Amino acid sequence: MTKTAAIIGGGVIGGGWAARFLLNGWDVRVFDPDPEAERKIGEVLANARRSYPGLFDQGVPAEGTLTFHDAMSDAVEGAAWIQESVPERLEIKQKVYQTLQAACDPNAVIGSSTSGFKPSELQSCATRPEQIVVCHPFNPVYLLPLVEVVGTDKNPPDFMDHVAAIIESIAMHPLRVRKEIDAHIADRFLEAVWREALWLVKDGIASTEEIDNAIRYGFGIRWAQMGLFETYRVAGGEAGMKHFMAQFGPALKWPWTKLMDVPDFTDELVDLIAGQSDEQSGMHSIRDLERIRDNNLVAMMRALKAQDWGAGALLNKAERAKTEPALDGLVETVRRVVPLDWTDYNGHMNEARYLQAFGDATDRFMEIIGCDADYIATGGSYFTAETHIRHVDEVHAGDEIHIDTYLAVGEGKKMQLFHQMYAGGRLLATGEHFLIHVSLQSRKPSEPAAAILEKLGAIRATHAALPMPDGQGRAVGKK
Amino acid sequence: MTKTAAIIGGGVIGGGWAARFLLNGWDVRVFDPDPEAERKIGEVLANARRSYPGLFDQGVPAEGTLTFHDAMSDAVEGAAWIQESVPERLEIKQKVYQTLQAACDPNAVIGSSTSGFKPSELQSCATRPEQIVVCHPFNPVYLLPLVEVVGTDKNPPDFMDHVAAIIESIAMHPLRVRKEIDAHIADRFLEAVWREALWLVKDGIASTEEIDNAIRYGFGIRWAQMGLFETYRVAGGEAGMKHFMAQFGPALKWPWTKLMDVPDFTDELVDLIAGQSDEQSGMHSIRDLERIRDNNLVAMMRALKAQDWGAGALLNKAERAKTEPALDGLVETVRRVVPLDWTDYNGHMNEARYLQAFGDATDRFMEIIGCDADYIATGGSYFTAETHIRHVDEVHAGDEIHIDTYLAVGEGKKMQLFHQMYAGGRLLATGEHFLIHVSLQSRKPSEPAAAILEKLGAIRATHAALPMPDGQGRAVGKK
Repeated sequence: MTKTAAIIGGGVIGGGWAARFLLNGWDVRVFDPDPEAERKIGEVLANARRSYPGLFDQGVPAEGTLTFHDAMSDAVEGAAWIQESVPERLEIKQKVYQTLQAACDPNAVIGSSTSGFKPSELQSCATRPEQIVVCHPFNPVYLLPLVEVVGTDKNPPDFMDHVAAIIESIAMHPLRVRKEIDAHIADRFLEAVWREALWLVKDGIASTEEIDNAIRYGFGIRWAQMGLFETYRVAGGEAGMKHFMAQFGPALKWPWTKLMDVPDFTDELVDLIAGQSDEQSGMHSIRDLERIRDNNLVAMMRALKAQDWGAGALLNKAERAKTEPALDGLVETVRRVVPLDWTDYNGHMNEARYLQAFGDATDRFMEIIGCDADYIATGGSYFTAETHIRHVDEVHAGDEIHIDTYLAVGEGKKMQLFHQMYAGGRLLATGEHFLIHVSLQSRKPSEPAAAILEKLGAIRATHAALPMPDGQGRAVGKK
Repeated sequence: MTKTAAIIGGGVIGGGWAARFLLNGWDVRVFDPDPEAERKIGEVLANARRSYPGLFDQGVPAEGTLTFHDAMSDAVEGAAWIQESVPERLEIKQKVYQTLQAACDPNAVIGSSTSGFKPSELQSCATRPEQIVVCHPFNPVYLLPLVEVVGTDKNPPDFMDHVAAIIESIAMHPLRVRKEIDAHIADRFLEAVWREALWLVKDGIASTEEIDNAIRYGFGIRWAQMGLFETYRVAGGEAGMKHFMAQFGPALKWPWTKLMDVPDFTDELVDLIAGQSDEQSGMHSIRDLERIRDNNLVAMMRALKAQDWGAGALLNKAERAKTEPALDGLVETVRRVVPLDWTDYNGHMNEARYLQAFGDATDRFMEIIGCDADYIATGGSYFTAETHIRHVDEVHAGDEIHIDTYLAVGEGKKMQLFHQMYAGGRLLATGEHFLIHVSLQSRKPSEPAAAILEKLGAIRATHAALPMPDGQGRAVGKK
């Protein structure tokens, strides 16, 4: 059954939550008195649609339905999740909870996107404090997986588990903060760095651009994959974390930061920073910067996905389970969305990515006939000897593609596959692949296991009755 | 002429500098009294060789020669660059400069890897202060491009430009810090975050693993590509940086950080953190973690390279200039090292990457015949219609490959290329590609410009006299 999320407050953060739920198949109801809310959420959703579904290598669920509501009570009634992202003023948030708790399901989750307030503060005037919990996400919410989840003694443990399970079900990571504290975890770091950065600009040590470069050319890329402690563990080497701490601990007492003090937010400081920022990034509109950021995040997250590490390992964990394919006709071996990092600057899928998709189709077909990870661990596998690709039509980032596979030969050491790639009913390309079963020890041809030959025989018998696909068995440039 | 760098102190940082210089074609002389120095530098160099050369899509220079020296004077004599990476104690560093300045070229650069000392402190007892400058790199030095360059009034402006030019020539980014300050720029941020993280662990708010996840699932990936200010500029939206600052400025006064205070480095705190770190990462050896880190960094940096952004844009800027190919035989269209992100977990190049390399070869051939970016901007280009790949042999990450291209057809709208990929003299694969010249407006076949047809004709006349490559014109699985 389709679940419903209510989004209370539809700015960049609320819009990001709306997109995250919609693209994971939830229906979403938005309440926001801003007359621009529909346009603003539409813009966030457009960014999300072009970037998020392609993060995954399996298909994605059908998008839910988005509606806008004039009354908060309409939006929250019957919703399983209510996400509050109104301005950071405690009295506004408390008022919102009082209003919506008059209409919402007592079993619903009320998550707050607050950056700084503690859950006990949010719960203090509520009718049912037990259903209110901090769920603090990071912008862009449709791409970054982190959600800081903070509760109090009033939230039952079962409820907290339920919250975490829903967050995981929308491909996010619930980081359960052990005790409530102002600004949770990540924002404390952001705040510390922001404060230090303001000093550096104010004192003329570095410009905003130089500070950004100091981050993104160095520790920023380190932190993106290992964070702080694991990075230092590696730096400490075989001597271990104790050695590292003994070596660098004393530096804490050195005069390395100005953080004992807070710079005054004078007009002069604001002008200095805004001016430097214009010089650094003013050649790009905010819309352009959003797209550049999303392209970069998708490319890096998918790079980490291939390494099965960090935010990329989370994506792998969130992949939909593979469904058993029907074997009474052509075999569907791939169904996915074209990701942003597979395309050129015009948004067309790159040549080599056609082969990547066909390679995925071959891998999936191998799994289906029993040549899976367990079998490969016993020392046998198929190697591709030859490939013939014909390009028929173009496809863009964000489009769903699927591949139907025809088994032309499947006997002895030989397997010949003919893949047809479609976007809907439109043929995009064909891939003909000749594979040989090999021993992984000798790297020489060898007979596959009997169970594999049996499955190949059954599929081949079915496919022999089908018409031979057009283009199969041809040389390049020949009809 | 080959340049020489002297590395004084050969730990992780000194070893990283040695690898960076060697892999950019410099000869490197190491002085380090540690009897283990040769082994330690060998390990860093092995990591660098497997990860660094493949960052680039053009070939890399031949590696320089590495030698070890018992006397500091031998190591530094005649060196153009001397990099000091001895322990962080001012009196040791000052002693080193006095010793080496007795033997080194007065025009050499003496760079210090110091994390915290100001250049005026380093220069204070030196014979020639004007040649000493802070050049603070980030681990792993062979991958991360950032070098914080800090000088004083004693360093002539010409000298500082010379320092920056050498750093750029080894594919690093010289961040020129405008005024000297303790810990330069990046380490002030690291210090602020480290201090806050220690409090969070000590107070039981989060474990080391939870803190790392708070970084790498959220702002860490953001910072890796845009840093702090540009990220906030995007978050601020169309209202701009001033609006952002007005909104978030006041939070600086809220009790969001503990940074007014420094936690005591008790045995209890050290044990707590070392124990949590073991639990988080103890299943991997430090060697494994280094390789995982390098795989991740290469994959993310190359992902950013494809987007031409951040650390990836630096890589593009550092690519070697393309050389004009000889056209009196087969045309060399690719020469590069197989990068880490092109390989599977066994280190073999993935199937789809063969086509990526062949696609690069086709792009380069198009440039050579005049179908370059300028021509494409006029509305004409070649599209690949068909591809036939034959896999002959395997290749590993870190191996150099090259592609020789044979023009089988080049007349009218048609172009047929036959690429042969080699590692040294070993044939790895062939790629036969049938392309059609198209109008980019109509996406339909069209005649290329006369200048292109003329170049194709000349190359075809040369190639017609060559033997037809084996395997050209065949269908999949046919002899």
